Amino acid sequence: MAVRAVLCVLLGLHCSVFCSPVPRVSVCGYESCPATKPKMLNVHLVPHTHDDVGWLKTVDQYYYGGRNDIQHAGVQYILDSVVAALQKDPARRFIYVETAFFYRWWKQQNPSTRRVVTQLVEQGRLEFINGGWCMSDEATTHYSAVIDQMTLGLRFLNDTFGECGRPRVAWHIDPFGHAREHASLFAQMGFDGFFFGRLDYQDKARRMKAREMEMVWRASQSLKPPAADLFTGVLPNGYNPPPGFCWDQSCSDAPVQDDPDLDDYNVDMLVATFLNIASAQAQVYKTNHIVMTMGSDFQYENANLWYKNMDKLIRYVNAQQANGSVVNVLYSTPSCYLQELHLANLTWPLKTDDFFPYADDAHDFWTGYFTSRPALKRYERLSNSLLQTCNQLEVLGGAKSRSGPFGEGHSDTMKRAMAVAQHHDAVSGTERQHVAYDYAKRLATGWAHCQVLVRNSLAVLSGSDVPRVFCENLNISVCPLTEGSKKFSMNVYNPLARVVTWSVRLPVNGTSYSVTDSNGKEMDSQVIPVSKATQDLRRDRGYAKYELVFEVQAPPMGYTTYSVTLLKAHPARAPTTPKAPASMQNKYLKVTFDPATGLLSGLTNLETQQSIQLTQNFYWYNASGGDAESRQASGAYIFRPNSSTPISINQNPNISTLQNSVVQEVRQQFSPWVSQVVRLYNGSRELELEWTVGPVPVADGLGKEVITRLDSNISSAGYFYTDSNGREVMERRKDYRPTWDLKQTEPIAGNYYPINSRAFIKDGRNQMTVVTDRSQGVSSIYNGSLEIMLHRRLLHDDVRGVEEPLSEPGEFADGLVVRGRLLVMLTPPETAADMHRPLAQGMVLQPMLSFQEGALPRNAKLEFSGLQAALPPAVHLLTVSQWSNDSVLLRLEHQYESSESKTYSLPVTVNLQKLFSTLEIVGVSEMSLGANQWKEDMKRLQWKPSTGDDMKPVGGGLGDPTPWEITLQPMEIRTFLLRVQRR
Amino acid sequence: MAVRAVLCVLLGLHCSVFCSPVPRVSVCGYESCPATKPKMLNVHLVPHTHDDVGWLKTVDQYYYGGRNDIQHAGVQYILDSVVAALQKDPARRFIYVETAFFYRWWKQQNPSTRRVVTQLVEQGRLEFINGGWCMSDEATTHYSAVIDQMTLGLRFLNDTFGECGRPRVAWHIDPFGHAREHASLFAQMGFDGFFFGRLDYQDKARRMKAREMEMVWRASQSLKPPAADLFTGVLPNGYNPPPGFCWDQSCSDAPVQDDPDLDDYNVDMLVATFLNIASAQAQVYKTNHIVMTMGSDFQYENANLWYKNMDKLIRYVNAQQANGSVVNVLYSTPSCYLQELHLANLTWPLKTDDFFPYADDAHDFWTGYFTSRPALKRYERLSNSLLQTCNQLEVLGGAKSRSGPFGEGHSDTMKRAMAVAQHHDAVSGTERQHVAYDYAKRLATGWAHCQVLVRNSLAVLSGSDVPRVFCENLNISVCPLTEGSKKFSMNVYNPLARVVTWSVRLPVNGTSYSVTDSNGKEMDSQVIPVSKATQDLRRDRGYAKYELVFEVQAPPMGYTTYSVTLLKAHPARAPTTPKAPASMQNKYLKVTFDPATGLLSGLTNLETQQSIQLTQNFYWYNASGGDAESRQASGAYIFRPNSSTPISINQNPNISTLQNSVVQEVRQQFSPWVSQVVRLYNGSRELELEWTVGPVPVADGLGKEVITRLDSNISSAGYFYTDSNGREVMERRKDYRPTWDLKQTEPIAGNYYPINSRAFIKDGRNQMTVVTDRSQGVSSIYNGSLEIMLHRRLLHDDVRGVEEPLSEPGEFADGLVVRGRLLVMLTPPETAADMHRPLAQGMVLQPMLSFQEGALPRNAKLEFSGLQAALPPAVHLLTVSQWSNDSVLLRLEHQYESSESKTYSLPVTVNLQKLFSTLEIVGVSEMSLGANQWKEDMKRLQWKPSTGDDMKPVGGGLGDPTPWEITLQPMEIRTFLLRVQRR
Repeated sequence: MAVRAVLCVLLGLHCSVFCSPVPRVSVCGYESCPATKPKMLNVHLVPHTHDDVGWLKTVDQYYYGGRNDIQHAGVQYILDSVVAALQKDPARRFIYVETAFFYRWWKQQNPSTRRVVTQLVEQGRLEFINGGWCMSDEATTHYSAVIDQMTLGLRFLNDTFGECGRPRVAWHIDPFGHAREHASLFAQMGFDGFFFGRLDYQDKARRMKAREMEMVWRASQSLKPPAADLFTGVLPNGYNPPPGFCWDQSCSDAPVQDDPDLDDYNVDMLVATFLNIASAQAQVYKTNHIVMTMGSDFQYENANLWYKNMDKLIRYVNAQQANGSVVNVLYSTPSCYLQELHLANLTWPLKTDDFFPYADDAHDFWTGYFTSRPALKRYERLSNSLLQTCNQLEVLGGAKSRSGPFGEGHSDTMKRAMAVAQHHDAVSGTERQHVAYDYAKRLATGWAHCQVLVRNSLAVLSGSDVPRVFCENLNISVCPLTEGSKKFSMNVYNPLARVVTWSVRLPVNGTSYSVTDSNGKEMDSQVIPVSKATQDLRRDRGYAKYELVFEVQAPPMGYTTYSVTLLKAHPARAPTTPKAPASMQNKYLKVTFDPATGLLSGLTNLETQQSIQLTQNFYWYNASGGDAESRQASGAYIFRPNSSTPISINQNPNISTLQNSVVQEVRQQFSPWVSQVVRLYNGSRELELEWTVGPVPVADGLGKEVITRLDSNISSAGYFYTDSNGREVMERRKDYRPTWDLKQTEPIAGNYYPINSRAFIKDGRNQMTVVTDRSQGVSSIYNGSLEIMLHRRLLHDDVRGVEEPLSEPGEFADGLVVRGRLLVMLTPPETAADMHRPLAQGMVLQPMLSFQEGALPRNAKLEFSGLQAALPPAVHLLTVSQWSNDSVLLRLEHQYESSESKTYSLPVTVNLQKLFSTLEIVGVSEMSLGANQWKEDMKRLQWKPSTGDDMKPVGGGLGDPTPWEITLQPMEIRTFLLRVQRR
Repeated sequence: MAVRAVLCVLLGLHCSVFCSPVPRVSVCGYESCPATKPKMLNVHLVPHTHDDVGWLKTVDQYYYGGRNDIQHAGVQYILDSVVAALQKDPARRFIYVETAFFYRWWKQQNPSTRRVVTQLVEQGRLEFINGGWCMSDEATTHYSAVIDQMTLGLRFLNDTFGECGRPRVAWHIDPFGHAREHASLFAQMGFDGFFFGRLDYQDKARRMKAREMEMVWRASQSLKPPAADLFTGVLPNGYNPPPGFCWDQSCSDAPVQDDPDLDDYNVDMLVATFLNIASAQAQVYKTNHIVMTMGSDFQYENANLWYKNMDKLIRYVNAQQANGSVVNVLYSTPSCYLQELHLANLTWPLKTDDFFPYADDAHDFWTGYFTSRPALKRYERLSNSLLQTCNQLEVLGGAKSRSGPFGEGHSDTMKRAMAVAQHHDAVSGTERQHVAYDYAKRLATGWAHCQVLVRNSLAVLSGSDVPRVFCENLNISVCPLTEGSKKFSMNVYNPLARVVTWSVRLPVNGTSYSVTDSNGKEMDSQVIPVSKATQDLRRDRGYAKYELVFEVQAPPMGYTTYSVTLLKAHPARAPTTPKAPASMQNKYLKVTFDPATGLLSGLTNLETQQSIQLTQNFYWYNASGGDAESRQASGAYIFRPNSSTPISINQNPNISTLQNSVVQEVRQQFSPWVSQVVRLYNGSRELELEWTVGPVPVADGLGKEVITRLDSNISSAGYFYTDSNGREVMERRKDYRPTWDLKQTEPIAGNYYPINSRAFIKDGRNQMTVVTDRSQGVSSIYNGSLEIMLHRRLLHDDVRGVEEPLSEPGEFADGLVVRGRLLVMLTPPETAADMHRPLAQGMVLQPMLSFQEGALPRNAKLEFSGLQAALPPAVHLLTVSQWSNDSVLLRLEHQYESSESKTYSLPVTVNLQKLFSTLEIVGVSEMSLGANQWKEDMKRLQWKPSTGDDMKPVGGGLGDPTPWEITLQPMEIRTFLLRVQRR
């Protein structure tokens, strides 16, 4: 591709992604795989370590081996030790997975060790697998952050080791259930196969019996196969070695004791046991190759123990071949095992649904973590928005963004913090409390560094060096500048590629303000009282009596500026009234209330003239502490209510109401720890439910899992819909699994599924869609009903290793209070996506507000867009990020599925040369989704499903009109490396 | 020395002890020590591991790392790991101590690893310290077995590494108190210094204050200084690192976290802490050198953790020198530290007593293990006797001993089993039950191999191949051959160097036998009924109704043969009478009994016409389970009675009596679990008390520590005397310590001391000496009283790591029954040693009986002595052991102290050429006691005590009349390597 050739010459850097790798004298990848014996059962031993990027300890504690009193684990030693052990015998292999750790370690190595490691990698003896910064959670992560964290890790490997550092296999051995969207992303990243360890125990039993432990996962309903087909294998023992063969320092299995002069000689017994295990395992897999994961959590800190004993095992087991044994054991890797499966040239069962929810026993559904630590889940999501904004402003502001009037700023810390937060014990909420704090601290530190960059960039773009502050506590009406200022301006940066309208609420103490937009036009604004719930929540962090509410609109990938001036103190507006209105409405929506209770009673879409009955309330499930049926308690991972009937908090909340030209609110106080604002902005097509839950009381000795439930007259008949990692939508059905005959043992927990951004129920006429601001657990237990778990506070550990009950102390140690928003829409099913797709992207990438005290600076540029024009509605600007001095990583995404929108589920073309307003694209080269391979070099192993179409590979971009005009198919993400010049 | 030169040429083998080592290009020993800084405080970090030769796991389990569920420990990995770590940096040092493990490891290494290790040893980077097969217990071991185990370990090191493998320093970091005799032996083995970790907490406090942590220990009252002077140092932290600096995988201290980009950076804090610790430690030691033991139990399995962090510690602490710090940290070894102390050229406090008993807190006296596992203690002692016999017969029988008519026999297994049994958690009784079984099994296996050798040797010597059986259960009257035979012969082998008379009791079913000696002379023999206690004890292992009792006499280091023939069945003798006699007596002793109770009431020495009142009974201390004063319970290590008054078992035992021409017995049954035979043989000068204790009942919930107490009218005034490892005698005094002002906190346990072979009390006229058959705890709580703890059965663990209460199950799982003997003598104090010295040696090296069925073989040699004549009474033949094909190790010992016997405490000369009857000595070379150095090369560092004589070194053998005639001074042991030819 010409564009790429130009880039290579121009960039001339060591980045081997960007330029064609210089051929090296190395045999890595499949060519480096060990010989196997075709007539024998080949047992692939895969030495590996599973290194959680934070869990019981922080990522840095795990790296160094600090706080070994909590858990013995020190990754620095693992890598030291494995490198030493690999050097001792070229037959030995090891895989490494988590780049967050490898990066820390590599930084500290001297050139000689680096040379040794490079050689091991180039000979395939040390192989990187998966290769992301972490092994992401699959239930609670948003696809954009997953792509980012994979890109960060893969880039480090590519920069460091070139092609030999490119992982061939995705490896999610520990995450607690598996999302179809993850599989789709892995396929688009170029992985040849995927292995995992955890799936529903019923599913596993069936698959073992049917020899369906390995399959082709068709992971998208929109992308043309095999673009999202991923060969997927279930590992035999989770990710542990077979029983009796764990030789890590953390294990107590007998070593190979092969000196007949010493007591406890056990070679014959061990060989016999191993042969039995191998033979049994071969019965549930299809080929004459089987895999055994020889390692586990933080193992190989003393690799000698493992390798010394495996060396002996291999020697003694293979020695039996002379006596007629047909078992051949060898050191291997997942990719070498995968290659053998591919060479077997079989057909494989087709999988089209996902692996949620995960249960490892009848009463052990890992569906609690969909909601665990809701504040962390929200902060992670918010941080993603801030990082995308930071990335965009780094590109838009140029070099001065990093080093400008406000000092040195950068996005690296934020990128790493966000990448770490994707870990399957991070945003999942399944870490210890102090580790959760550490994740949050990392994000905060990352944001602090980004803030400098953002200030610099906005200074460049606006021409104003006036100090700029950010108010991170607007959700509890705290912002010292707006509270005290008589005149200030507000910059609204919009990271989306289209104009966005949004309502802002600023804490103030005046009773009347003038708000003008960047053209000086006066906006409609209203001052309303701060709610009691918010006052309680903010405690002494702020004292604003009022909120100034008005609607703002910002240009695509750009900002605009509003001026706010305190008017002469008008008398305070009429206070709220203590009673719900019969209804509130704007031109789009009508919301009705039960006059007796003040609760919602109905919703009408005034545009479509459709109407549903809709009630909504809050309940809590009483968390089981274990019972006669099972000792399993609810915990960070596991949701297990002790009754299927949740307890209502209050059917008659205290009500206060306000209505003005900008906003209408019904404020509902259900209890000291549950309140809600039902809010309708003047310009909104959706109803906002702002809930506040906490501190959840547990003095009664009962753990509580708080839900809100929307009950409608929609005939949903047990079906409901959830998004997968914020992208494609999965159909769910109560007490049902598409691929096996479910025996339902937990009527509530066994019906929970994760959502990242939305859920809906529908019938022929009505679809009620709820868009959420963070990942949560959701279900539909009753016809027409949708319940969302909001918060959890528990008194027991669920015995999955955390050894801490999930009981977040909160800021004042009386229990964590969490506030969030649900956006509720009523539409016909056929046009629902047209509304929820952009709305959900707006929740993910929200406007960034910043404030400057005083009057607008003279000559300041009050409005700016980085795009020449808004992108087409179907196109989402997923990534704009500085890659090197002269290059930018761009990802464009078609945000509709192939059949969900009559209007938008169509191919759409973008002309890259007409994309940016201030940057000229002088070169473009398409890459794999993980940005570690040229798209044209991405040649994945192809697998034949036993059912479904046998598709030929379809190259990306084949349908592009010109190299600059690229076409996106529904749900397609395309990744480009651009060489740019400032116009 | 000419003799030696001849030997060297003739032997021409790789054994570098035997021939002058060829100079090697190596810098080991003191020359290899790291540079220090004279103006600074030098902190010697000593990386080390403490590898128990059995404790919670068996020695083989520890070697391989089996049963890591009990304790994580695998010595194979420690050595693998340390060797790898040492190769990474020449500054790193390591010491290794336990040859039992190193030997196992070395056997499994390939030539390339052996070369690497040899180089490390030759460069002083890996240094052997102590070097015995194990680190022996000091309280419960007999000196002869200690010398043997040291010799075994040191020889392996010498054979493998030559001079560079010779340890310079003795290192007993863990034993629970320290025996003066051990120090004496170490001095005689050529050690330059000695370090240990445990001493009484009051003693330690005083020494720290007075800066007397390091001293000169004058370890013999007889040997001329400095022959038994040993520089002795108390380590600062036991054998652990200073708090906060343990970086083993088994520890949880923070690693050095030196990446400022990561959380928990702690370099500044660690450096400051370390400097404080070093400074505080320097306050209690005398020089500008201090030592820190960087390691502990089974540490360094992953040496990288330790070294990586110590490398950093050294770097960061020494970096502070640039800022004025005067602390210099370095990798070092105990010998390098010792060298610096020596170079300091100071005088050191003089120590002449010992370090018993050991208390680590006010109620935590480690005096229980003096008696713990009395059966194992006896079996170990018996095994020593068997091994010495086996060794002698290997020499006497020649090559056919190892390979003869009864197959392949050898003493190697027995030597190693005995060496292992000396470990401070073996014969000490402080191991787990399954480990105690393993020690016993090893001894039994060793004896099985020795039995073949012994059979072969006796076949050679006697000219008879008739099968020969050994009866190992004679103590419970079980011997299938004698029980069923009508005619058999008995070989009595005497390992002592003088004629010994002994009484034998053989289980029989006939009522009358003819017994003839090797000259056909009829012996007086008697048939007596087997006691009820013995019948109960043997259960169904034997059915003899009677015991045939007669006196035997065997020649020095030789055997004689007795023939036994069943006479026509006479009617059974009169049964025992159920009442004690008023007295029983022979020509030497008169023993009186209380007619009312049948208990002892007095003892008269008829030769000296001295008489004492003497009562004796059995009691038990109620073992504490912890109380309000202290939670300390009695356990395997610790003795803590919950009252100072022991509980009497029975003041009126059931009595039965028998008296005949060979033996007189009063059989006392105190309870179902305590009985005793008070036995006087016709030819004995001592009274035998054969006690049987067990199963100790604990169903009442009370742990019991069973004693026997002898109460006399001797005015002992709080003084009593105990032997040290079976050699020199220590004066003890109730509630008193010679070197500090004792605050007595445990009136019983704090007055217990170990005995190995004897204890006595005395006044101006009378000395009552008790010789025992195994190591035990002893005290004198009352005037004229001596109490000996016989057995212990406890219900609590004493929290010193065993985690198992000491409650031996015994053969039938109802609790262990133990039987033993005490020999009681009454003499004037001035002649007591003349009697107890040979008597105790006779208890240690007892005759070995073997039996052949049927008539005496024709032409068999019925009597044999390996010596030309008995050695002088003062001389004990300590070692006669094959060293190589043509060489024999000989140790001769003067068995009297310098002032204990008017008759025998004199120099005595032995002519080596006139020693053996069948072997000609063609070369002789004197060696250090450990046989790993020529005596003439043994040049120890000399140390000046601050008090006492400042002696010049005295070479051994200076007073010898000729090279063949060697003179022994009181308590001197001389070690010779002999080249021998068969005459």
